[in-house]
Amino acid sequence: MTAPGKLYLVPAPLDFGCATAAPLCDCMPDGTLRVASRLQHWVCENARSTRAYLKRVGMVHALMYPLQQLVLHELPHAVHKKGDHRGEFDARPLLADAIAGHDMGLVSEAGMPAIADPGSSVVRAAHALGITVAPLVGPVSLMLSLAASGLNGQDFAFVGYLPQEGTERAARVRVLEKIALTRGQTQLFIEVPYRNAALLQTLLQVLAPTTWLAVSAGLTMESGQSRSASIAAWRRPGWAPDNSTPAVFAIGA
Amino acid sequence: MTAPGKLYLVPAPLDFGCATAAPLCDCMPDGTLRVASRLQHWVCENARSTRAYLKRVGMVHALMYPLQQLVLHELPHAVHKKGDHRGEFDARPLLADAIAGHDMGLVSEAGMPAIADPGSSVVRAAHALGITVAPLVGPVSLMLSLAASGLNGQDFAFVGYLPQEGTERAARVRVLEKIALTRGQTQLFIEVPYRNAALLQTLLQVLAPTTWLAVSAGLTMESGQSRSASIAAWRRPGWAPDNSTPAVFAIGA
Repeated sequence: MTAPGKLYLVPAPLDFGCATAAPLCDCMPDGTLRVASRLQHWVCENARSTRAYLKRVGMVHALMYPLQQLVLHELPHAVHKKGDHRGEFDARPLLADAIAGHDMGLVSEAGMPAIADPGSSVVRAAHALGITVAPLVGPVSLMLSLAASGLNGQDFAFVGYLPQEGTERAARVRVLEKIALTRGQTQLFIEVPYRNAALLQTLLQVLAPTTWLAVSAGLTMESGQSRSASIAAWRRPGWAPDNSTPAVFAIGA
Repeated sequence: MTAPGKLYLVPAPLDFGCATAAPLCDCMPDGTLRVASRLQHWVCENARSTRAYLKRVGMVHALMYPLQQLVLHELPHAVHKKGDHRGEFDARPLLADAIAGHDMGLVSEAGMPAIADPGSSVVRAAHALGITVAPLVGPVSLMLSLAASGLNGQDFAFVGYLPQEGTERAARVRVLEKIALTRGQTQLFIEVPYRNAALLQTLLQVLAPTTWLAVSAGLTMESGQSRSASIAAWRRPGWAPDNSTPAVFAIGA
């Protein structure tokens, strides 16, 4: 019987779709790019953007298999939308190539797969099948943002997206503020880029003047920005988040 | 008036003190090493290990300033022990070199500064002084472990160390399990290496058989290991965490 291959968790750069993308080596370790360059079998969110990423990898390390010979398995659309962390999606069939002895890569659209992104069902399936899971180093926007926030990095939570509906959203912000202030646990969340400014407005209205808010966007890029200040300071005009780049928000004491 | 320098958050490798350390480029982006190689002014936990790290950096990119010309400001010991996220420590004097116009680096003993490590007071001081904060990409053991766990990465919390006293520790584990199961929020925590096995024993005794537990240690190293399984599966003998490497524990649904 063939020994199964490994499942490598391959991070992707955060500058996707950006015209001024920097060289991959600026934010990806050579070790990660070297592994990516030799894998033929992949599980991904989107085959087209995975090919575009691997084409960039190939400019650093020649790909062992040409793009047209790559075997790319896409996660189903339902998994993208609803997430795959509730154990409802059985990802084991996606790992047939690993069972057949091939090393595989799991990649998401940006950053670390399975963090603030789908992929955990694939990792869980690997553990269930006795496939070794090997996470590789790369950019994680949540951690770049948390470190840059100056807020408590020894107790923190990431809670995903906030509700969209106004009253519900304000109520959720109040709950997160209470946790941040009473337990000292930094609360991180994200928003789709075109709603960055609207979310910031809600935060400025709902949070107390002494509560601390940090917003980061475009980190690892030339245009990257990070601001951390009290709500009172945020309420003075002068800073607006870019509505074209994913942002990470953090509330702290 | 001179414009202030930037504060770069410089990650360190996770293989510190390890005899079989791999080349730095395996897990550090070239862009990060390039910035580190040109900085003269640093805030660190320990000057000696910072010099050892920068000596390794110098093997990849020649240091712009020789080791004996580096200016290394250590965080006070009280900050190491108690943490510096409660706003009691004023780190502004440590950034005098940045105010004088020099770019500075903030580095911790391993991984990302200010995450599961001291440093947030320095970042916060930088924001207060109008110094631009630029986080650089590198390994973050918490995120490598979370991705490798297969547990929910779209809602998670890191809670630091658990209490050491037995009854208190068991009670805390039960609280974390309840949050993980009822809210679906993965709960991550760490332990000092020589207590890894003891913590695992507590977890196997206290958690329910169907609760999921993931343990990772030594990630980014050849000896790295990651296991994720139900408590029922963990209770069967066969796997023991290495008591010499920091481990990350995660509880999930």
